[in-house]
Amino acid sequence: MAHIDLPPGLPGIRGLLAYSPETARPLSELAEVLLRSESTLTPGERELSATHVSARNDCLFCRSSHGAAAAHHLGGDADLVAAVQTDPEHAPVSDKLRALLAIAGKVARGGKHVTADDVARARAEGATDNELHDAVLIAAAFCMYNRYVDGLATWAPEEPEAYAEAGERLAVEGYLAAA
Amino acid sequence: MAHIDLPPGLPGIRGLLAYSPETARPLSELAEVLLRSESTLTPGERELSATHVSARNDCLFCRSSHGAAAAHHLGGDADLVAAVQTDPEHAPVSDKLRALLAIAGKVARGGKHVTADDVARARAEGATDNELHDAVLIAAAFCMYNRYVDGLATWAPEEPEAYAEAGERLAVEGYLAAA
Repeated sequence: MAHIDLPPGLPGIRGLLAYSPETARPLSELAEVLLRSESTLTPGERELSATHVSARNDCLFCRSSHGAAAAHHLGGDADLVAAVQTDPEHAPVSDKLRALLAIAGKVARGGKHVTADDVARARAEGATDNELHDAVLIAAAFCMYNRYVDGLATWAPEEPEAYAEAGERLAVEGYLAAA
Repeated sequence: MAHIDLPPGLPGIRGLLAYSPETARPLSELAEVLLRSESTLTPGERELSATHVSARNDCLFCRSSHGAAAAHHLGGDADLVAAVQTDPEHAPVSDKLRALLAIAGKVARGGKHVTADDVARARAEGATDNELHDAVLIAAAFCMYNRYVDGLATWAPEEPEAYAEAGERLAVEGYLAAA
């Protein structure tokens, strides 16, 4: 049971966004900009970062939702999503994305864990300033969303299939429609 | 030196907000709503939560800025701010705020660290659903801001005095003016 009295029937952050429309607006706008605005990182790559950080933070709802959104963007490749969630160093992604996911994992532990070597590795694989900025801010933002969802003990479906429809909706309609 | 090429002369998150106006907008709006909108928690109490979480996350810029903003709200009581940053259980704050700061500290470690007992303690001291919601989301949001600031290795003045003017500006003009 959630720690506060939330609207019934809405899992994870959805109940919180309905409970608090005033904070829902900037939270949804931030997700929309980070995950879906014009960028040299594809929406699929950014959703992979979101699900990786959420997996590291052991947030079932966010890991599953953004994993489903990533899978939708990537043609339904659930094995790729699972690999990125648990072991991005050996996942079949580009060397640039692998280096950015390593930075995202460091950010999940704390900002100061990101080293100049981590950044140099990503640059050697072609990462730009904007991509480094976005990799760090996406990871930081999911450290917030994950803590919001679990810090208030919201409920989340256990079965992966329960997230397929929501993942498609996030991938197609985005985060402003969800708010 | 920061990991990416930021506008010169702007410390901490200020350089990042100038670098990326598209993300600056929701980030600033979120801070404004969380720390300064109508609430039964005073702006001073909310800034104390922000500086406590930032201290736990060892983010010098955020700890110092929001500590200075809290001090401005609280009539310049730097000793109180320092006590809340390092040891809120023994700081001279209300029992309700002390219980909410304990929850904020748990959120900094991870959302699942918040227990039903933590929530019951805060409720016994009079905390409402809205106050519990805001305590968790403020703490979660500073886990983001702190990681954004340190994950990109922004610079921050070492001397506490350097933050007094910025703290006053945040307390008086708020976060939309700063963006």
